[in-house]
Amino acid sequence: MSSADEIKRLQDLANKLRVLSVQATDASKSGELSNLRKITSDLEGHPTPRLNFVDVATGSLGQGLSVAAGMAYVAKYIDQLDFRTYCVLGDGEVAEGSVWEAMNFASLKQLNNLVAIFDVNRLGQSQETCLGHQVEVYADRAKSFGWNPIIVDGHNISELLAAFAKAAECKDKPTAIIAKTFKGKGFPNIEDKLNWHGKALGAKSNEVLAHLNAQLSSEDVNSSYNESKAEAPAVNLKEVKLSSPPDYKLGEKIATRFAYGTALVKLGQTCNRVISLDAETKNSTYAETYMKQFPDRFVECYIAEQNLVGVGIGLGCRGRTIPFLSTFAAFFMRAADHLRMAEISQANIKCVGSHCGVSIGEDGPSQMALEDLALFRSIPNCTVFYPSDAVSTERACELAAQHHGIDFIRTSRPATSVIYTSDTKFEIGKAQVVRQSKKDKLLFIGAGVTLHECLTAADIIEKKHQIFTRVIDPFTIKPLDSQTIIENAIAVGGRVLVVEDHYPEGGLGDAVAKALLANGNGYPFRFLHLAVNEVPRSGQPAELMSKYRIDAETIEKEIEKFM
Amino acid sequence: MSSADEIKRLQDLANKLRVLSVQATDASKSGELSNLRKITSDLEGHPTPRLNFVDVATGSLGQGLSVAAGMAYVAKYIDQLDFRTYCVLGDGEVAEGSVWEAMNFASLKQLNNLVAIFDVNRLGQSQETCLGHQVEVYADRAKSFGWNPIIVDGHNISELLAAFAKAAECKDKPTAIIAKTFKGKGFPNIEDKLNWHGKALGAKSNEVLAHLNAQLSSEDVNSSYNESKAEAPAVNLKEVKLSSPPDYKLGEKIATRFAYGTALVKLGQTCNRVISLDAETKNSTYAETYMKQFPDRFVECYIAEQNLVGVGIGLGCRGRTIPFLSTFAAFFMRAADHLRMAEISQANIKCVGSHCGVSIGEDGPSQMALEDLALFRSIPNCTVFYPSDAVSTERACELAAQHHGIDFIRTSRPATSVIYTSDTKFEIGKAQVVRQSKKDKLLFIGAGVTLHECLTAADIIEKKHQIFTRVIDPFTIKPLDSQTIIENAIAVGGRVLVVEDHYPEGGLGDAVAKALLANGNGYPFRFLHLAVNEVPRSGQPAELMSKYRIDAETIEKEIEKFM
Repeated sequence: MSSADEIKRLQDLANKLRVLSVQATDASKSGELSNLRKITSDLEGHPTPRLNFVDVATGSLGQGLSVAAGMAYVAKYIDQLDFRTYCVLGDGEVAEGSVWEAMNFASLKQLNNLVAIFDVNRLGQSQETCLGHQVEVYADRAKSFGWNPIIVDGHNISELLAAFAKAAECKDKPTAIIAKTFKGKGFPNIEDKLNWHGKALGAKSNEVLAHLNAQLSSEDVNSSYNESKAEAPAVNLKEVKLSSPPDYKLGEKIATRFAYGTALVKLGQTCNRVISLDAETKNSTYAETYMKQFPDRFVECYIAEQNLVGVGIGLGCRGRTIPFLSTFAAFFMRAADHLRMAEISQANIKCVGSHCGVSIGEDGPSQMALEDLALFRSIPNCTVFYPSDAVSTERACELAAQHHGIDFIRTSRPATSVIYTSDTKFEIGKAQVVRQSKKDKLLFIGAGVTLHECLTAADIIEKKHQIFTRVIDPFTIKPLDSQTIIENAIAVGGRVLVVEDHYPEGGLGDAVAKALLANGNGYPFRFLHLAVNEVPRSGQPAELMSKYRIDAETIEKEIEKFM
Repeated sequence: MSSADEIKRLQDLANKLRVLSVQATDASKSGELSNLRKITSDLEGHPTPRLNFVDVATGSLGQGLSVAAGMAYVAKYIDQLDFRTYCVLGDGEVAEGSVWEAMNFASLKQLNNLVAIFDVNRLGQSQETCLGHQVEVYADRAKSFGWNPIIVDGHNISELLAAFAKAAECKDKPTAIIAKTFKGKGFPNIEDKLNWHGKALGAKSNEVLAHLNAQLSSEDVNSSYNESKAEAPAVNLKEVKLSSPPDYKLGEKIATRFAYGTALVKLGQTCNRVISLDAETKNSTYAETYMKQFPDRFVECYIAEQNLVGVGIGLGCRGRTIPFLSTFAAFFMRAADHLRMAEISQANIKCVGSHCGVSIGEDGPSQMALEDLALFRSIPNCTVFYPSDAVSTERACELAAQHHGIDFIRTSRPATSVIYTSDTKFEIGKAQVVRQSKKDKLLFIGAGVTLHECLTAADIIEKKHQIFTRVIDPFTIKPLDSQTIIENAIAVGGRVLVVEDHYPEGGLGDAVAKALLANGNGYPFRFLHLAVNEVPRSGQPAELMSKYRIDAETIEKEIEKFM
């Protein structure tokens, strides 16, 4: 996918590749291309942004069109420039539902500056694609999804150029160029044949190269193009910050999801490139707060979370915007593969998932995120915030906005007490010791609702058993502040209890256990972990926290195991 | 969704609910319905199979149609009976791409016994749906996807019955009934209004109940129905086993993905209800081996992994089949939300993911599963197999087939040595100590390719440093054999090194660390963890394992930290 300046760069690349291709007839002169897929080369098996002309990685299918739609959205509505975005799709990947999420989105947003080229070559990896060469079916589907479809012979450059011109004339719809092609076109004994997917030519190399060289000598291809006169204005994302400090009273009850809406508005006040995207949950995630304040910087993505993430990646490309993506944390699972690819794409997106854990209450397990920390922790370089009050939520949003990369902020449904003063400093990878004394014999670690259960339990235990407890709020689950945790764990004699509103695997408990074991230099820690051990039910938040054993009362009972 | 006997049960339920509804006017007589969403009731916020007439949970949107397609597939092609399957979709969820994966699949497989009812009520959670009441657009989309669309007034029972009759006459296509409806139809001051999503009626209850009771007294609704005469034949899935023991020579080099194909054929020989599904990767996953042997028991799902999992859940419902779903392990991430819901649905599916880790080589990071263990470990009750040779792979497949629930088998691309004799016994949750002596001072734990690196490293270390090393193959990562690991860890003096072809979070290292810390009774273990710490590149498998520090040479260097 590419806007006009990208076309120029791609044309330059094409020329370079053409030169390299000619050179490849003589291996000794082949240069960079002959290093394809070697560990020393940035030319990988599938392109990634290690190549400076690649903005987004490919390799997991059906994701490109959402990203392209995000880029086109920026051009049309944010930068308001005449860049056009082109996305090539293989016909096999069009079976991916994410493509149809993007098709729906692009027509709804009238992205007439977006062109999708369906390369209908009929052949998949292991067999014919499900629709073969039925280009009319692709065209019908595109039309029904609100696109302007044009069927062409994909090997006929005049037809292609005419189609691109027609696409540019269409003022209210994106255009789908349905290109009938033959895989390996012109390659002797390979064209339109199965079993050549991802294979090197081997013994056929010389024959094919001779054929290609013969083609290169023809003058059919006119490589002239009109350079776009538009230039994207410089934007400065670095000065984004909260327009005013968090403003709450200690003890005031505020849901962290609510504080998210407040924070986002404050960020939007200092940076007009903060964009909020939501998947038809804005009245639950509180993205609505932002939409009301900045309707032009809000993108409703409807119930299509893969496209939400894809569009977000596109919006964040080349530093044009800071996209905040919100939905229920559970539904980010729908976009797990897009998030995996986002890291390979070196994307800059801020994911905010509300309604984590059993503490959401009656809606039941389908709405409860209990594996979201496992997902986001597994993404390299992803920063995972799990704020426990309104003040730290606002700071988490600010830090995420200022940080380049993938960030996840886990927010909770219930109102929880404000425990930090407005001037408390927060940093990525820096925990807060929220309760301590010199007499502490236990360390509790919780986050979100369970931090508050830890604090309550600590009070009960002090009163009832005269045992003093230290409590840590990790603030970020990744990176985890191992040093603070280990120092305090040792200070209390090694007794550590972690409690979290998440399944036992992949979350805070796993993170703390590994930190203690890997960095504790053989200190004999004692470790207890309370988490949700089965698929939960519907019920009141407090009932559920009790039933699934992550409440203060369970913590109190559990510490007997340390005694 | 429901086949004929399900309709009967639903009608019975409807009658029961009608009674309950009448009773509800008097709270003291209201019975089960008044316990909706209470922690003591199986009537949850969204239905789950805790209710015995529910086969599959709902609550995450856009997943039902794939499951329904799987059920319809069983009826038409496996049981060959005249059951019909009905699936109701909300209009909002039709924005989910997974719906269009299922639409494509159902028409390709000519599932004329499947009816989708699009409930087009115009209103979403926070605003109007993207297509509002444009029923023609839904009909056009359904038609372009190969369905038979019928537009009806969804409140007109005669029109609905006529549409169902028409659907039954269609012999080559599934039918989509596009029902124009009004949310809260007939509810005074609520009908067709926003802001009533998931809300209780509160003060309006009496008025609405009076209205509903007035409706119930009418005789408009004819609740007669034709009972299906077809009865699903009894099937016995319990005797599934390998038709012959694994047959390999020690030291022979076989990729575990290849052994998967062999194992599946052997299982198919003892049980004709073993069904293989693949997402257009069958020549890489080796599902192809099964397809060649049993073409009628193979379902090509094309590149649409959400639908692959949804159809698999449908195939496995009510014990009709044992579905084995295969694709690259990385691409199961595409179906993470479906897998999350599969557990809430108490599904029986066997997921087999090939091409895990950097050891796949040149295809690059987009094709490498490096977070799949984190995903599958986070699913409650999921059994996660990570076999390290061909013998254990065959046994993993057999154990998964015999086990009811979600299973994941992680297979590798490179050929690895056979290390087990054919008669080695394997159990879920039982590790194998594959190298040991009384002089052992170190414990290495690896799986798949890294188990072989551990064995090589152990040999080198013995020769070079005269230090003896114990090596454990966990076989299942979940449940993990904590007891064997802890006993052996203590036996060697507490020095444990885990090495895995996965990112550091959520995989084998986290699992072992937590087991040691939580169950080790304060033993002062020393723990090292080698895993892939960054987004990898393309390269040769051995080069990548070296660069990302999960090879024998790195292990050897690393143990200096223990000394």
